[in-house]
Amino acid sequence: MKKSLLIVSHGSRREQSNIEVNELTKKIIPLTAGQFDIVHCAYLELAEPLIPDGIDLCINQGAESVLVLPYFLAAGRHVAEDIPEIINTARIKHPTKSINIATHLGAAEKMPGLLADIALNNKD
Amino acid sequence: MKKSLLIVSHGSRREQSNIEVNELTKKIIPLTAGQFDIVHCAYLELAEPLIPDGIDLCINQGAESVLVLPYFLAAGRHVAEDIPEIINTARIKHPTKSINIATHLGAAEKMPGLLADIALNNKD
Repeated sequence: MKKSLLIVSHGSRREQSNIEVNELTKKIIPLTAGQFDIVHCAYLELAEPLIPDGIDLCINQGAESVLVLPYFLAAGRHVAEDIPEIINTARIKHPTKSINIATHLGAAEKMPGLLADIALNNKD
Repeated sequence: MKKSLLIVSHGSRREQSNIEVNELTKKIIPLTAGQFDIVHCAYLELAEPLIPDGIDLCINQGAESVLVLPYFLAAGRHVAEDIPEIINTARIKHPTKSINIATHLGAAEKMPGLLADIALNNKD
């Protein structure tokens, strides 16, 4: 059963920001090899593919499950309402697939450790 | 020589988002113990303390250096222009202190690993 991971970012008018998310997504592929067969990114707005198209892309490539990972720091309206609403619509469109939302980035248990790591690497 | 770390977030009208940053900052303290004597957070806008006040707070508590760590995902205008400008002004105010900016969160080398970790922890 093919599993897919969809990194979901807000999307920006600055093309460079979207490219950064795309590059980041490519770096996740080898780190999740054997666990996720398909890894893509998608955007809430302002860039393509939008989230529904990203989900369709994963499913068209044979994914039986899509794990949507919100690349957002705060549990604001986008994380709490907009993304779940989009996922609910996608579930109606793809009733035989498993489409779930992972913890958003800002709530990751290892976030304090990552920040500590940046600080220690940038110390005088 | 006392060293300080200032986690700098955008700041939100949603008080809960600012509280999340505050809680996150507290979790960094034990992880940087022995390397940073003072750890605080500050905000670019919409919440207090603002960045200049956060820097003053660190220095008033005896810090000889302040490492400002931007808790931002993208290298947009805030990271590329606004924060450096604020830091330059702070350097003029505190000419005998070392005030530097760390890599912003989104550019952390270990970010792909953190995202992979979230994905694997949320897998079916």
